[in-house]
Amino acid sequence: MSDCLFCKISAGDVPAEKVHDDGELFAIKDINPTAPVHLLIIPHKHIETIADLEAAHAELIGKVYLTARDIARDEGFDEDGYRVVANCKRDGGQTVFHIHFHLLAGRPMSWPPG
Amino acid sequence: MSDCLFCKISAGDVPAEKVHDDGELFAIKDINPTAPVHLLIIPHKHIETIADLEAAHAELIGKVYLTARDIARDEGFDEDGYRVVANCKRDGGQTVFHIHFHLLAGRPMSWPPG
Repeated sequence: MSDCLFCKISAGDVPAEKVHDDGELFAIKDINPTAPVHLLIIPHKHIETIADLEAAHAELIGKVYLTARDIARDEGFDEDGYRVVANCKRDGGQTVFHIHFHLLAGRPMSWPPG
Repeated sequence: MSDCLFCKISAGDVPAEKVHDDGELFAIKDINPTAPVHLLIIPHKHIETIADLEAAHAELIGKVYLTARDIARDEGFDEDGYRVVANCKRDGGQTVFHIHFHLLAGRPMSWPPG
């Protein structure tokens, strides 16, 4: 069995409230939120980092942004706006090595982004 | 003629050093860098915000991450890591309304991301 936390959540072996799930991508609330809305959009497929992406994954990764767009519309922060952040490896601040995208909203995001 | 800065750079009407250009996406240095490496990856196609993305754009947006992966390998920060940030509208901190993706590297990125 995989030791990957997000694979376990994907499979339902670790409980988590999925606020979105279309079979390719799911979204959960970050357990340490840094904004009023702080979700993680996660491919079900296990890909460790951005560095491990292959050309065949392009459409899947693009769909992350369509999902962010849809969640923003559904949750009503589409007009105010939001930020999407993806961390790769140590300098990026990646802590779970299953690719995921932070969707942050509900307050003005400052600059620089970390 | 478009008033969009990134359309002008795309067309070559405003000079900028393109560190990458594959016909679909180009990359330039951010004029106000917040990290030792701070690039913008930009579709040639004019799309205002993430909220304006359509399903047909998914592969293009996914290719942004393949481009980030390739730039990281080419410029030698692939092992240390990096962060990719996309801002949508006011709360996201979007300043140019032509979709673009910040690629930040060369130092540990802190948390929260703005």
